[in-house]
Amino acid sequence: MVESGQHGFDVEEWSVGSEGVDTEHLAHEESVFGLSNGHVGWRGNLDEGDPRGVAGSYLNGVFEEHPMPYAEEGYGYPEHGQSVINVSNGQLIRLLVGDEAFDVRRGTLDSHSRRLDLRAGTLQRDLGWTSPVGTRVRVRSTRIVSFAHRSVAAVRYIVEAIDATEVTIVSELLANEPLPITHEDPRVQELLKEPWEAVHSTAQGAAATLVHRTRKSGLSVAVSMDHRVAHSGRVTPEVATDVDPAGDRARTTVHVALEAGETIEVVKLVGHEWSSTLSTATLRDRAETAVADAFRGGWETIADEQRSRLDEFWECADVRIDGPQRLQQAVRFALFQVFQASVRMELRSVPGKGLTGSGYEGHTFWDFEAFVLPVLTSTLPHAAEQALRWRHSVLDHARDRATQLHLRGAALPWRTIDGREASGYWPASTAAFHINADVAGAVLHYVRATGDEAFEREAGVELLAESARLWMSLGRWDARGGFHLDGVTGPDEYSAIANDNVFTNLSAQLNLRGAAAAARRHPEVAEALSVTADEIAGWEDAAEAMTVPFDAERSIHPQSAGYTDLEIWDFEATSPDQYLLQNHFPYFDLYRKQVVKQADLVLALWFAHEAFTPEQKSRAFSYYEALTVRDSSLSAAAQSVIAAEVGHLDLALDYLAEVATLDLDDLHGNTGEGLHVAALAGVWTAITAGFGGMRDGETGLRFRPRLPAQVHGLEFGVRIHGCILRVEITPASTTYRLASGAPVTITHFDEEVVLEPGHPVTLDTPPLGPPGPRPTQPHGRAPRPAAEAFGRN
Amino acid sequence: MVESGQHGFDVEEWSVGSEGVDTEHLAHEESVFGLSNGHVGWRGNLDEGDPRGVAGSYLNGVFEEHPMPYAEEGYGYPEHGQSVINVSNGQLIRLLVGDEAFDVRRGTLDSHSRRLDLRAGTLQRDLGWTSPVGTRVRVRSTRIVSFAHRSVAAVRYIVEAIDATEVTIVSELLANEPLPITHEDPRVQELLKEPWEAVHSTAQGAAATLVHRTRKSGLSVAVSMDHRVAHSGRVTPEVATDVDPAGDRARTTVHVALEAGETIEVVKLVGHEWSSTLSTATLRDRAETAVADAFRGGWETIADEQRSRLDEFWECADVRIDGPQRLQQAVRFALFQVFQASVRMELRSVPGKGLTGSGYEGHTFWDFEAFVLPVLTSTLPHAAEQALRWRHSVLDHARDRATQLHLRGAALPWRTIDGREASGYWPASTAAFHINADVAGAVLHYVRATGDEAFEREAGVELLAESARLWMSLGRWDARGGFHLDGVTGPDEYSAIANDNVFTNLSAQLNLRGAAAAARRHPEVAEALSVTADEIAGWEDAAEAMTVPFDAERSIHPQSAGYTDLEIWDFEATSPDQYLLQNHFPYFDLYRKQVVKQADLVLALWFAHEAFTPEQKSRAFSYYEALTVRDSSLSAAAQSVIAAEVGHLDLALDYLAEVATLDLDDLHGNTGEGLHVAALAGVWTAITAGFGGMRDGETGLRFRPRLPAQVHGLEFGVRIHGCILRVEITPASTTYRLASGAPVTITHFDEEVVLEPGHPVTLDTPPLGPPGPRPTQPHGRAPRPAAEAFGRN
Repeated sequence: MVESGQHGFDVEEWSVGSEGVDTEHLAHEESVFGLSNGHVGWRGNLDEGDPRGVAGSYLNGVFEEHPMPYAEEGYGYPEHGQSVINVSNGQLIRLLVGDEAFDVRRGTLDSHSRRLDLRAGTLQRDLGWTSPVGTRVRVRSTRIVSFAHRSVAAVRYIVEAIDATEVTIVSELLANEPLPITHEDPRVQELLKEPWEAVHSTAQGAAATLVHRTRKSGLSVAVSMDHRVAHSGRVTPEVATDVDPAGDRARTTVHVALEAGETIEVVKLVGHEWSSTLSTATLRDRAETAVADAFRGGWETIADEQRSRLDEFWECADVRIDGPQRLQQAVRFALFQVFQASVRMELRSVPGKGLTGSGYEGHTFWDFEAFVLPVLTSTLPHAAEQALRWRHSVLDHARDRATQLHLRGAALPWRTIDGREASGYWPASTAAFHINADVAGAVLHYVRATGDEAFEREAGVELLAESARLWMSLGRWDARGGFHLDGVTGPDEYSAIANDNVFTNLSAQLNLRGAAAAARRHPEVAEALSVTADEIAGWEDAAEAMTVPFDAERSIHPQSAGYTDLEIWDFEATSPDQYLLQNHFPYFDLYRKQVVKQADLVLALWFAHEAFTPEQKSRAFSYYEALTVRDSSLSAAAQSVIAAEVGHLDLALDYLAEVATLDLDDLHGNTGEGLHVAALAGVWTAITAGFGGMRDGETGLRFRPRLPAQVHGLEFGVRIHGCILRVEITPASTTYRLASGAPVTITHFDEEVVLEPGHPVTLDTPPLGPPGPRPTQPHGRAPRPAAEAFGRN
Repeated sequence: MVESGQHGFDVEEWSVGSEGVDTEHLAHEESVFGLSNGHVGWRGNLDEGDPRGVAGSYLNGVFEEHPMPYAEEGYGYPEHGQSVINVSNGQLIRLLVGDEAFDVRRGTLDSHSRRLDLRAGTLQRDLGWTSPVGTRVRVRSTRIVSFAHRSVAAVRYIVEAIDATEVTIVSELLANEPLPITHEDPRVQELLKEPWEAVHSTAQGAAATLVHRTRKSGLSVAVSMDHRVAHSGRVTPEVATDVDPAGDRARTTVHVALEAGETIEVVKLVGHEWSSTLSTATLRDRAETAVADAFRGGWETIADEQRSRLDEFWECADVRIDGPQRLQQAVRFALFQVFQASVRMELRSVPGKGLTGSGYEGHTFWDFEAFVLPVLTSTLPHAAEQALRWRHSVLDHARDRATQLHLRGAALPWRTIDGREASGYWPASTAAFHINADVAGAVLHYVRATGDEAFEREAGVELLAESARLWMSLGRWDARGGFHLDGVTGPDEYSAIANDNVFTNLSAQLNLRGAAAAARRHPEVAEALSVTADEIAGWEDAAEAMTVPFDAERSIHPQSAGYTDLEIWDFEATSPDQYLLQNHFPYFDLYRKQVVKQADLVLALWFAHEAFTPEQKSRAFSYYEALTVRDSSLSAAAQSVIAAEVGHLDLALDYLAEVATLDLDDLHGNTGEGLHVAALAGVWTAITAGFGGMRDGETGLRFRPRLPAQVHGLEFGVRIHGCILRVEITPASTTYRLASGAPVTITHFDEEVVLEPGHPVTLDTPPLGPPGPRPTQPHGRAPRPAAEAFGRN
């Protein structure tokens, strides 16, 4: 029998597994074991539906709209919010052994394990159960959300009778499964409680389809299932399918009598389609066709295609670590999550939680473009392209928003599902204009890394130009010819509405320069966008004149103008249980003091790396380390990158360790609401940009590889113009290996090197000067030590 | 017959009247004709209840509590809002002539007038009506909300039959009359739709009582009525009273047959009591006893007492103007409103709309202490005392709020009914800490003006000390020994969360100094409050070190640090229909630019008048005039005061004219929601502090009287230590006349004068130097010219 109360995953190179069923931490496991392809997302709920943490079956882009409540109204406040909702749940496979419903909490659970296979792209579950009346069965279920068949999820469910028994398998589609209630407003609760209206349902043979429509957002979803039943026994199973009168449940029942040792296998395929415009019949047909198409090759083909798509990804993306085994596992887990969050999205973005939970209401934020998209650009560029083309496809919403704000160009939404602004607190959303530069930066990086001229022409120039226009209308020229961005909020959410935020200004500067260069490269696109030569020159002038405040007295870049003069937060007087600070102190007090939630100036040191001298970076990093409380999962990776750059390799490893175990160990206690996709992307970034010292810039990729003592070797890959560059780092040297294509120029420390396919180059690591004393963090806010996170292995 | 569609009041010295019934503007008239005594408020609804703009029967302090909705939650956000609700309406007197219900929209309204008598304290209505079947009656109703009987409102209702007819008069109490819906949240709508639960009702003879209780705030209200019926005819009226089963309506029906020329008179008295603690029986008994007590002297006594209480007020407070007659009317109307809003409040404050409407949800704000209370201190000091003692009585709420914000002392609520914070937008409430200094300033002024040592000991020292503690915990010491208040919001609501707001810092400085002096004067109180000598010294140090930013380059005090460097709002590009700016532009943009909603630095020039040189005042006034759009009713009076001080007397008169006609002419289009009490107080202030040049300070009252060309003489009075000082200004000289008491030292321009009772002193007005060019306002935002507001009379 398996003990309950265990918690934690084993450490394997290519998988993440757990034993037993820990009913206290089901939600955490459901997020970690969630499967997705960027279009369909299934949380790792148990097949039989209960017990559950949070039921989750999502389609990227499907949401319900609801009123936004304000205690006091204000001009430009978004009127409508958006919340992800569950689509019809196709995961459900209920099991009766004799007349006993299988439930891990009943009878005796003789064994139970689940394993997420990072190469197979499957979630496998194996269990042995003795029913309350003593009948024993074994169950193996294997779940796939298909990378090859975009709308299809699949389950192979095998029951083996240890004792002779009758077995009933009830496979369902179930609509209107509620999400956790996070809204206080009863109007919103009412809308989200049962968001779906049934508009169509059919059952035929072992197949059924449900079509539903939301009440407000006007989206329709068709979910279709079909089954193949196989058996090893003498008795042929009976199969019947029905739909309930309300159209909210379809059910295929498979009944069979098994002798001891006989098995029954059900393969279930579920197809998902949604649209705001297609007819019910078309949606239904598409979902059913997708299922039929996927069934053509059978289960083995689906599984083979799944593995083969992953092989292709790992060929470039795999990171190999000669060091802590748990770090090896964590980085592969992280890359797998980034991959499955995005591989089959089309004209969509990745929500903050991917498709692994309903946290943040399923919204996408700036951190996708800032932290996740660069990983995609380097390892899965077609997904990066899709996400950027989605931004382009909803530019009209952003242009409307800019007009509403009396600005020009486009003002991208701070949080959204469909491209319209859905933020309810303007100082940390509307004012956080850096989102526009973050997206622009992602465009510039994508174009440099891929050379995708078609994308630049069709979408990139316009994204860059519309954001450049925004900056021009936002900015102010002073009497001395300086350009300022006043009253904006940077990445750090413990500051707001400040003048000349360094991160924002430098990012806007890159945006303006990039827009000018792109417009010059594509004069016909510029003309179509009414971008004149004068306008381009204006962008360049503003970029040149961009103000970057510097506190000469302290020789530190302030986060924003005057920041370093503010009172420093009283960290000594802040107790450990007062973090997250935002849950225990008013914004009023946080905003007026020096206390940093997440890397802001330190993020500028990374994103605008050419704007600072090494000495400035080193001083600034130490200064902001003492202020940064890391109340956001977005911070540790950025801190790791700069810690490595300024020579604090042990500290960099600690930050990496923290971000690498954030979701696996549920360090923030909220992984149950979904994985922190941007933090997971940060694992890769801390390795490549941190220990690899990789930086992207107009002159190409630069590397300054250095390993901490605990890591003896490190290997990673990036795609450059479609070719794979593998970087193999040892303490003493680094080997660069270009797989194919045209020669590529990179910079190793300060040395320019031309790489040719088939001619690896090995270069020495220059000695590291003394990094000075290890920077200190606020009282009690040092990162989790790597030794603790990774164990002593 | 009276034409409908007329709008506007006549111009009389001691009254405000209107002819006809303008159904389009009923709400405006209801506010202007509202009666109150600071405890009970009745809007000027028609006796018969319909047509109506907004039904209004209020008790100061009676509200319902409701949830506060937030799109995104934050620490320290108030969870509960408060909304004034109607108490049982005792105004209602329905009339049937024959079987025809009287309604001004039916039959023929032969004549109709209403008049608010500013000396009698009555609202009188006279009308002639011919019913649809041709029966003619005259009706005179006189309404009083008693100054002598705090809980009592009274109506004398006389019907004269021109033609013989039967007359039925139905006098009612009616509970659960809804307010206009201003909340979007259905939870709040539900609570406020029918906020009252009936807990008791009785009817006996011509009397009835209803007792109701709120569902959430736990307040009970008893409203009781009784009637005396008199008649001139032969037939004795039948009188009967009943209560409906739900307990929401009581009704006394008087029926009589009148010959032509006969009359029937009903005097109705309504008593109002409320409590959060008293039993139903006690409340009921108090309401009934109040009615019985008031009936003892009969109608004439009630009316005599009313006039006599007003006579007493006018003896000191009356302002006489040899100038525009409409200004004369307006200033008396304004003073009457300030008087009736506060005269009988006990341990209560005055809501922003007084008891004339439900605007601002019945909340009281900083502008009461900043603008209204000084008028009371000078003309009705016991009311000022009650309001300040109310602040003292709810200090525990403010201490709790300070604790919640991790501050010391007390943090007064930005908007409230019962003393708890009820603001839903922190940048313009929590951050607007100046409310604490505004109340402290009112305490200091009250004590100086009255010498009320008992108040200072019992309440004043604690109010001052707790706010001084707040400033100490809010402030920051810089390395050079300067004291700063960072991240606060000043009076101007088009700026927020700025450092070292000059108004706030100077007001806090006065607060700290006043607290220190008061604590030294009352060592035993200080000890009881644990105020040590060190703490007092700390207050004085902080006051001394208080930072007052100055823009040396422009020789201007910035509103806050760095303000004058911000971009200036593009007024030329702002069209007239884009005001109020807050309804057409996001806070984000308003906050980061130089655009002033309401006097802020200019208010500092007045409130902290000793901190600026005349040259600084003059320059600052001109500078901020060009930025001030006056989107708040609180601004014009302050601008008038400083315009007069810096010599722009015509401009000062224009601002006075605007504020004087704001409610009478409904300039903001929202007087129907209630009068702007602080603006009305500003009429007196613009006259006394503006043209009188009156300033209060530690060295006593100072005067610098100067009249604009259109005003040939001006006389006003203030109370000093219980004695009346009358100031009579002509263009050439000013006469100061002390009625009684000990000698008083005042300053006339720069000359100190000792005044003795019975010995008026006349002093010359020194010549006025050239004031320079008239300051200009933003495009289209110049004040209403006096000639337009007052007519050419």
